[in-house]
Amino acid sequence: MLVQKYKDMLSGKSVIRQLSEFATARGQEIGYENVFDYSLGNPSVPVPQEFTDEMIRMLTEMGTNALHGYSPSLGITSVREAVADSLERRFGLPYGKEHIFMAVGAAGALAHAFRLVTEPGDEILTFAPFFPEYHPYVDLTGAVLKVVPPDTERFQIHFGKFREMLTEKVMAVLINTPNNPSGVVYSAETLRTLADILREKSAEYGHTIYLISDEPYREIVFSGVEAPCVSAFYDNTIMCYSFSKSLSIPGERIGYVAVNPRCKDAEDMINMCGQISRGIGHNCPPSLIQLAVARVLDKTADLGVYETNRNLLYRELVNLGFTCVEPGGTFYIFPKALEEDAVEFCRKALKYDLVLVPGDTFGAPGYFRMAYCIDTEKVERSLEPLRRFVREVYGR
Amino acid sequence: MLVQKYKDMLSGKSVIRQLSEFATARGQEIGYENVFDYSLGNPSVPVPQEFTDEMIRMLTEMGTNALHGYSPSLGITSVREAVADSLERRFGLPYGKEHIFMAVGAAGALAHAFRLVTEPGDEILTFAPFFPEYHPYVDLTGAVLKVVPPDTERFQIHFGKFREMLTEKVMAVLINTPNNPSGVVYSAETLRTLADILREKSAEYGHTIYLISDEPYREIVFSGVEAPCVSAFYDNTIMCYSFSKSLSIPGERIGYVAVNPRCKDAEDMINMCGQISRGIGHNCPPSLIQLAVARVLDKTADLGVYETNRNLLYRELVNLGFTCVEPGGTFYIFPKALEEDAVEFCRKALKYDLVLVPGDTFGAPGYFRMAYCIDTEKVERSLEPLRRFVREVYGR
Repeated sequence: MLVQKYKDMLSGKSVIRQLSEFATARGQEIGYENVFDYSLGNPSVPVPQEFTDEMIRMLTEMGTNALHGYSPSLGITSVREAVADSLERRFGLPYGKEHIFMAVGAAGALAHAFRLVTEPGDEILTFAPFFPEYHPYVDLTGAVLKVVPPDTERFQIHFGKFREMLTEKVMAVLINTPNNPSGVVYSAETLRTLADILREKSAEYGHTIYLISDEPYREIVFSGVEAPCVSAFYDNTIMCYSFSKSLSIPGERIGYVAVNPRCKDAEDMINMCGQISRGIGHNCPPSLIQLAVARVLDKTADLGVYETNRNLLYRELVNLGFTCVEPGGTFYIFPKALEEDAVEFCRKALKYDLVLVPGDTFGAPGYFRMAYCIDTEKVERSLEPLRRFVREVYGR
Repeated sequence: MLVQKYKDMLSGKSVIRQLSEFATARGQEIGYENVFDYSLGNPSVPVPQEFTDEMIRMLTEMGTNALHGYSPSLGITSVREAVADSLERRFGLPYGKEHIFMAVGAAGALAHAFRLVTEPGDEILTFAPFFPEYHPYVDLTGAVLKVVPPDTERFQIHFGKFREMLTEKVMAVLINTPNNPSGVVYSAETLRTLADILREKSAEYGHTIYLISDEPYREIVFSGVEAPCVSAFYDNTIMCYSFSKSLSIPGERIGYVAVNPRCKDAEDMINMCGQISRGIGHNCPPSLIQLAVARVLDKTADLGVYETNRNLLYRELVNLGFTCVEPGGTFYIFPKALEEDAVEFCRKALKYDLVLVPGDTFGAPGYFRMAYCIDTEKVERSLEPLRRFVREVYGR
């Protein structure tokens, strides 16, 4: 018999996907260039030429059995070394290859992190607004994801609510900074307070509360903003990284787990990831992709376009009277809707061919997300329909 | 706290890996060319030039966002279509893209298949000799893998034992033909009998017993041997495939699940794979690799060397008096050891720099596996040490 829980999931449809499907259908009607699709977080800037060049070089010059042969389940040793060196150089923590586990995308990295530190029934806390896939990622392990309500003033952390919810059942706290969907970067002050509380409660409960830091947007930080290294604040941090956004290669599914070298049992934890892999069919990311990213570790795609887009949108939204925290990074912005029901707000925007995503999906009803990883030219063209929408529907 | 079950697994070490480590260490001592390492099933023949050419062509000619962009979680549509067309052409079953789910290697494919049809506590039966990773693959889902003892006469299926073990708790039967480690191809007669029993017992128990067919060696079948298509015998078959062996690209982790079009709810099952992915961090295989295999679906590496090696080894082993079923495919052979304790037998062989793997690992004590995916020249040079080993230790 087919397993019911997965069968039941078939009827639930992601709001983001539905909106994106609307955009595609509407695009076929009026031309995709006329649909202002702010629904999907799909990187739009080209992949750095160095990545393509290195791939071609390897395919041309390396023996095929070396290039396409089995990788060890923790990842190719030279790749793990290169990642560790790069992290050490950038963040000043003593990373070695024994702290690095190569993973199939951030989803793969998180799948290992959750299983490392939670048993079924244990709780993981995260903070709204949050990436909605965290729910199936965690829930299907048997652990329970609980969401701390948002600090809507600054989209940092609502520490009052957090303290209330940080019970003895919580084994890990999951953060995402720079944040999808708010675009906000957690400040040093936020991370310091978070770490203090985690240390205090770990001592009180007699077990380590791990910090799982999901950092796919780490490289997309705008000028004037400081993005502190999460691991530097708390020893028991499990960093989950993906190259999807920094190199504009989301389809290549490549990332890693990096356990803080100061974490107790760090090396065991990486070896345990290799065991977890056997249970979830992970094994290791494709060797070609591992080798390619290792050759361009400190490169990124030209991410400047996201800042240009942020500037355009933030200015316009504020001018139009939206309440909006200025994004410090990512390619998202998360303003307050002009009516209480953001779903209704986004539904009305569709008539202006503006595809926005209601914040309900991210645990923050009343807000909406715009993913501005689209051409600047299109962002510019979208401002007039946005103005019309606000004027005609809300009289502003 | 770290999860104990994964921590406990760290102390268990794979026998195959230990032997391979011995071979590497010994190789550093006496030169790797002098170690006759028959331990690892790592394809040795070069990747077909077409695969490399197509990769370079895509990297040179395609836009990077199309090439490296997000793939749908079931796999890229055009790739699924190409796989379905190829299967339909080859096996005459009406496959469409709705029956295909692209997976990160056979391990990824199996991880989805097991979760589709078993809940924790359910049983999966497989047949000795079997690939030992099936144990962690299944056990870590919460289901229970039970192993039917071998038919040592022909390494087909011991149907007597199978009937005894096929209780109401069994939700799936897992087969692997051509088989690792025996090299044997299940005959049409074996598959027909298996299917008859599965239909009979499904009816008797009032639930479908699925057949999960792990087919990474499907393309490595020697002349004169017929390798019947498993799915043609039984409607409720879930085929799990990997390109690792056919294209010699085990490091690229690319394969698929193909649900028999005649299976009830086939399309739902594929959609359910997309949901399972969310829980195990799978998402989808890298887009570049998906697109590349789709362009060389009906190509294989030059697999003839495996047949040459089989001929050399089989003849020699028989001449030396080994009891041995002739492999019909793969790059494995599975003779009976010359003493009851195959572990001891393999330990003694190490003194002759022959690295063999005891059958205990595969659920068939008393036998040993040789993986002859190595250069023919090396196979030839290994025959003399093999003869010396047999003569000096066993007086034959």
